[in-house]
Amino acid sequence: MAGEFDLIQWIRQQQPPRNSTLTQTGVGDDLAVLKWPADDLLLVGVDQVLEGVHFDSARHTAEQIGRKAINRNLSDCAAMGCLPAAALAAVALPAGYPIEKARQLYLGMRAAAEAFDCVIVGGDTASWDGKLAISVTILGRSAGVRPVARAGARVGDGIYVSGPLGGSILGRHINFAPRIALGRELAPLASAMIDLSDGLSRDLRHICQESRVGAVIDADLVPIHADAIELSRQDARSPLEHALHDGEDYELLYTAADEPKRGTRIGQIVADAGVWIVESNGKRIPLEAKGWEHRLG
Amino acid sequence: MAGEFDLIQWIRQQQPPRNSTLTQTGVGDDLAVLKWPADDLLLVGVDQVLEGVHFDSARHTAEQIGRKAINRNLSDCAAMGCLPAAALAAVALPAGYPIEKARQLYLGMRAAAEAFDCVIVGGDTASWDGKLAISVTILGRSAGVRPVARAGARVGDGIYVSGPLGGSILGRHINFAPRIALGRELAPLASAMIDLSDGLSRDLRHICQESRVGAVIDADLVPIHADAIELSRQDARSPLEHALHDGEDYELLYTAADEPKRGTRIGQIVADAGVWIVESNGKRIPLEAKGWEHRLG
Repeated sequence: MAGEFDLIQWIRQQQPPRNSTLTQTGVGDDLAVLKWPADDLLLVGVDQVLEGVHFDSARHTAEQIGRKAINRNLSDCAAMGCLPAAALAAVALPAGYPIEKARQLYLGMRAAAEAFDCVIVGGDTASWDGKLAISVTILGRSAGVRPVARAGARVGDGIYVSGPLGGSILGRHINFAPRIALGRELAPLASAMIDLSDGLSRDLRHICQESRVGAVIDADLVPIHADAIELSRQDARSPLEHALHDGEDYELLYTAADEPKRGTRIGQIVADAGVWIVESNGKRIPLEAKGWEHRLG
Repeated sequence: MAGEFDLIQWIRQQQPPRNSTLTQTGVGDDLAVLKWPADDLLLVGVDQVLEGVHFDSARHTAEQIGRKAINRNLSDCAAMGCLPAAALAAVALPAGYPIEKARQLYLGMRAAAEAFDCVIVGGDTASWDGKLAISVTILGRSAGVRPVARAGARVGDGIYVSGPLGGSILGRHINFAPRIALGRELAPLASAMIDLSDGLSRDLRHICQESRVGAVIDADLVPIHADAIELSRQDARSPLEHALHDGEDYELLYTAADEPKRGTRIGQIVADAGVWIVESNGKRIPLEAKGWEHRLG
């Protein structure tokens, strides 16, 4: 495992200057030591990217994979309205994984983190007779903004999305910008918020279940991404179906009593448990959480 | 992925009451929200357990695997002298992994965490066409004790281990008790500390490199575990070699200027960079970091 140890040494040398907010030791210890600002809530979560599910090493560069691993977590910060502060990464490398690619993985992670003043403060690298797996933990700061939960949607709230949806498999799923600034801007206005990773039909259901409410969305209002149209030419599904179910859009889905200035209104929160869609012909039908997770490779 | 979602729902139902120290939301949101005590340093690290490296699903129960995933991280807390507070787990389940075994994994994690008042506050579960991988992030509190780094060893300090070493592959590697209480007790006395996961010969080198010192240990003083003797009957290596290199002992290795009341003194910190061992015949030779990681399966 000499290569593994070399990588850790190399990573240490790459450490950026200490974060001015969080006093920290380097990655040489068993644990990183941070001084958390006393007036800040600590938001923490973990998310993983796995070969064949979230990326395809034959198609995506190590740098892209590293970026996605971090950006998925930054997108969770956006959904809560918090500021990313620190991250940790656990990487399981396939035996014989080239050291240069491992470095690119790390550089991708670091670049994605640094774009939002987020410092990678710890990690674990191991090699195994298995596929590439990366798990990233994110620590976020409330930094003066109340975190937005999924459970706050109220009957009568409007439902909004921050951008067009569908067809992310064509490339956006690996190469997206987490909506951190937008999340901060929306947090004081939004009653509930989530990032669209599982797809609109599933993520809206998450908000409804946590908030114990229902939702009705209007098919004609759902913003369709050009990728959804492109993809509909390649399969039997309509652009709308792609927008409703594809997932990995990493846009924000949020509810608000007052109209925010950002995003597109697509529906309204209702009292009856369930999620419905009003089709162009005016017919209201249940919106299934189809959740065909798009699969890579 | 219906099974996956069911597991998350089930995990939520298993959540223990809120931790009295850390205000927290449940696992229903993108991130957990914690109020970190203002006078506590936050210690954070991540460690992973991988099929075929750290466990063998054919030999170990899911509950054992879950326990090990948490206990490895708790052992890092012990090494820093901090109190575990919260944990997050990312689990990559092989496609078709039985839901009941996934539950056992989680119950094992929770039992190991609760034994030290540590609450699992978040996680991510995904299934993939790969092997079982678990990554655990631990958040620890300094709770009135200065964290012990690896970098504090000084020339003249004694070198100590908390228990007998070697042969953990016979079973202790999966079934060990993290030395949390001992770590807390030693922290005010120890100049440097680490937990023995990679093996004495490698972990002592970590302390020396971080502290920019060397070490001389006495072969006759290294406490040998009965498992090392048992294992030496099965292979060509001596019990001492097993004690020096096997790893996964999860005992504490520490240095101190004054003799602590706990543990066994095995050597001394010296100025010359390097690690040496004095053999029974009085000959001082370099101690290689052999680091044959014991491999499972």
